[in-house]
Amino acid sequence: MKEFDEYIAMVNQAIATLKLPAQPAGLYDPIRYTLDCGGKRLRPVLTLAACQAMGKDPMTAIHQAIAIEMFHNFTLLHDDVMDNADVRRGRPTVHKRWNMETAILSGDAMLTTSTMLLSIKAGEHLASALDLFNGTAMNIYEGQQYDMDFEKRLDVTVEEYMEMIRLKTSVLLGCACGMGALMAGSDFDSQLQFFNYGVNLGLAFQLQDDYLDTYGNPETFGKAIGGDILNDKKTWLLIMALREDESGTVKNLIGNNDNPDEKIRKVREIYDSLGLPDRIHELIRAYIDSAISCLDQLNIMPEAREFFIDLALKSATRNK
Amino acid sequence: MKEFDEYIAMVNQAIATLKLPAQPAGLYDPIRYTLDCGGKRLRPVLTLAACQAMGKDPMTAIHQAIAIEMFHNFTLLHDDVMDNADVRRGRPTVHKRWNMETAILSGDAMLTTSTMLLSIKAGEHLASALDLFNGTAMNIYEGQQYDMDFEKRLDVTVEEYMEMIRLKTSVLLGCACGMGALMAGSDFDSQLQFFNYGVNLGLAFQLQDDYLDTYGNPETFGKAIGGDILNDKKTWLLIMALREDESGTVKNLIGNNDNPDEKIRKVREIYDSLGLPDRIHELIRAYIDSAISCLDQLNIMPEAREFFIDLALKSATRNK
Repeated sequence: MKEFDEYIAMVNQAIATLKLPAQPAGLYDPIRYTLDCGGKRLRPVLTLAACQAMGKDPMTAIHQAIAIEMFHNFTLLHDDVMDNADVRRGRPTVHKRWNMETAILSGDAMLTTSTMLLSIKAGEHLASALDLFNGTAMNIYEGQQYDMDFEKRLDVTVEEYMEMIRLKTSVLLGCACGMGALMAGSDFDSQLQFFNYGVNLGLAFQLQDDYLDTYGNPETFGKAIGGDILNDKKTWLLIMALREDESGTVKNLIGNNDNPDEKIRKVREIYDSLGLPDRIHELIRAYIDSAISCLDQLNIMPEAREFFIDLALKSATRNK
Repeated sequence: MKEFDEYIAMVNQAIATLKLPAQPAGLYDPIRYTLDCGGKRLRPVLTLAACQAMGKDPMTAIHQAIAIEMFHNFTLLHDDVMDNADVRRGRPTVHKRWNMETAILSGDAMLTTSTMLLSIKAGEHLASALDLFNGTAMNIYEGQQYDMDFEKRLDVTVEEYMEMIRLKTSVLLGCACGMGALMAGSDFDSQLQFFNYGVNLGLAFQLQDDYLDTYGNPETFGKAIGGDILNDKKTWLLIMALREDESGTVKNLIGNNDNPDEKIRKVREIYDSLGLPDRIHELIRAYIDSAISCLDQLNIMPEAREFFIDLALKSATRNK
């Protein structure tokens, strides 16, 4: 196995050598801009590492790895249009830097390009790789739709929320892991265990995101704390508070941003009084444990097992 | 060979039996709405007919045919958002009936679904089918980008315009024909001849569209005549007039919609004085001849040849 940063270097090298056409610049420049974003490259690293864990040269899965990274960046691009977000990773979003038309069309081109990349040197695995990739993509759209649907609802259950984040964010991590195993020629059960590892990792990852948005250190988190509270975003924390807060304080503050700092303080007080910070960490830990138990089902070298355990533990304790 | 309407019935039957999930309705209802649109189904018919012309049961290519129709409808859906169009085929566009977010996300799901459909029962042809399909999709995005770029320019040449419509609309007809031949297991040269037939047909089709927008009969055309003129759309007619109209009348009317009816009348007068209606028909006829000469290279039965000649001639003389 390699170090995480070595896999990142392989991914960045492969992205840098992608030969996108120069013209029409209005179509391809926004794609270059989006890819040159300094993202964490978590998903393609998972693909390369899973491929190597199953005994193959990680470069066997390099095109599939960057296909998944391309797809991920496409979803961010279109999500930013839908959310009318101004900033992504410290830079103007594509629809702000260019315009809405450009963001839609460049995103479409990224989606098609991701399928093209997925096909490169897929060989005998092409049909299975496409099935996994396209099925995952449909799940992600479904998750995004549920997320938008939940904005209009106050009665979202924890089960609905967990299913939404499973679809919207976790299955892509599952797909990234499963794709690496698939490209290594692993049997279906190994692909499935790696897929499930990724899904559990993704659930832990998203819950930690929810936690950090309210409880993160502003200096390390990189964006303002309390954004989810001000947007009345139906996170695990808010859903639990709506269910358990008998004072009705949280419910009454929804839609009321007259005093943003006080709203964040008051909602956080309720979260604290319900013990939610500890309880979300228990839940995160449970998903990490599930992820690790998937690794136990896999016939991989100790150093591969260590790589994926380490990655899971870091995800659960990260502060940004 | 079957009649055109029989192929349409096969396409509509296959679309009607597509099993799209019920939930989330916000994602899948707009897809059902878009597919249930009463379009001409020209592209999937081309795929089925080309497959049969090459000696195979047209149902061999049914999934690839509806993949192309799904893709075509996806491009219309996203184009309507980009153009902020209110009406499509006599009904509110998706972003008007629902909203912009829904239109973007449902379109994305249609694009992924089209790739999924393409893969079904593609067997040994999967990799080639994907290459053809994805390459065509990229061409279409490029064409759409050039079309948007041209809006800001007055110096678009005829060569640039023809290349734009080749990319934006013609290659998909080429892809539809080539896909049918590919799924029938034809050799590469036959696929290419069918592809080129479709591209030439598409060029003729688009030029006839340009002609009808200015010279069509309002009663049969189905939308208001002169829309392209009022939008200063860089059609073949306008580009030729900008090049040849020494009076400068056409150029001076660009951006000036103070008197719409008079603008349409005046621009049309210039078009007439330059003989453009006759000249565009000469050009259309030349593309139809090119399309037919592609058929001459193909080893197909007389009745298949007749089907495609008939289709080409009807495209060039249609009034809606």
